[in-house]
Amino acid sequence: MTDSNAVGANVSIALLHYPVYDKNRQVVASAVTNLDIHDIARAARTFGLFRYYVVTPVSGQREMVERISRHWREGWGATYNPKRKAALELLAVTSSLDDAIHELAEEFGKPVKIVMTGAGNHPRSVTCADFAALIKDSGQPYLLVFGTGWGLTEEVFAWADIILEPVKGPGVYNHLSVRSAVAIILDRLLGKR
Amino acid sequence: MTDSNAVGANVSIALLHYPVYDKNRQVVASAVTNLDIHDIARAARTFGLFRYYVVTPVSGQREMVERISRHWREGWGATYNPKRKAALELLAVTSSLDDAIHELAEEFGKPVKIVMTGAGNHPRSVTCADFAALIKDSGQPYLLVFGTGWGLTEEVFAWADIILEPVKGPGVYNHLSVRSAVAIILDRLLGKR
Repeated sequence: MTDSNAVGANVSIALLHYPVYDKNRQVVASAVTNLDIHDIARAARTFGLFRYYVVTPVSGQREMVERISRHWREGWGATYNPKRKAALELLAVTSSLDDAIHELAEEFGKPVKIVMTGAGNHPRSVTCADFAALIKDSGQPYLLVFGTGWGLTEEVFAWADIILEPVKGPGVYNHLSVRSAVAIILDRLLGKR
Repeated sequence: MTDSNAVGANVSIALLHYPVYDKNRQVVASAVTNLDIHDIARAARTFGLFRYYVVTPVSGQREMVERISRHWREGWGATYNPKRKAALELLAVTSSLDDAIHELAEEFGKPVKIVMTGAGNHPRSVTCADFAALIKDSGQPYLLVFGTGWGLTEEVFAWADIILEPVKGPGVYNHLSVRSAVAIILDRLLGKR
């Protein structure tokens, strides 16, 4: 199914539901939402990614994601909408970011580089244009990490090999949904213009 | 609230729920979803747009959108999350595309140009880069139209002054959600890199 030399085939994405901040900067596990599964899987397929990890330590939530995924991959949904099936074939569920990192390292036979994203500014962040140049080396796997809730915790950010600059419009307001941020960043990295 | 000379301040967006195609190419009115309201309002605010129209002929759906909007603009939600308030201040609800077009023409004192979007290829479509150059003329208002369901009908497409090329990744799959497509197109037109 995956052409390992195709553009984007060395890039995976992880949507973290823990550890993330809530509104009051408390560390919480956020709830998985159905549209995060679908929208991001469709974007991941459109931009040719290797895999899309939904990460949550809550076993009931992991089971829910698996159930939704099975419905569209194997159940009635696969016949009803084959394009949704193609998107959800990229989906995997893990209980921690560490599990996703180890799984990828095993499949690629080398350590994956961790790329953190967020709405804040970081002194050592790189532009999407610079990172787009890096991912052209298809021999190096990358995992792009996105936070839910009020964003990835500092503890998670410390794992970064690379930090991507935040998405900005013409003004100061940049409170995009994680679904919008994923779509924009994948387009900046892999979109065809 | 709006700086009429700011980048993007001559651009509005309309999310059409009628007339759109369903899976079997029947013309239907699709249902308004809560996340379409929020995600697209947040993207519209991030990229400095003038207004975001949710268009549906179903009065019960229009009332639902107004209720959600009031909650975040005036109700408890305005205090809980002022950034959501700022996004939803751009929201307006009309029963037809025609109503949105007339409202904008009246406010700008000149006809608005209609820009259609979709996942299909059209012989006279323009690139986002070409259209981005056009919107720098802040004296000309534009309305970007996005379809829900399986996309805008041919009848609506015939209203186009401009047709935008579809968003594509490296491969042939381009089944993005409308939320993702809006985010990507606004970033291509108005994002800061």
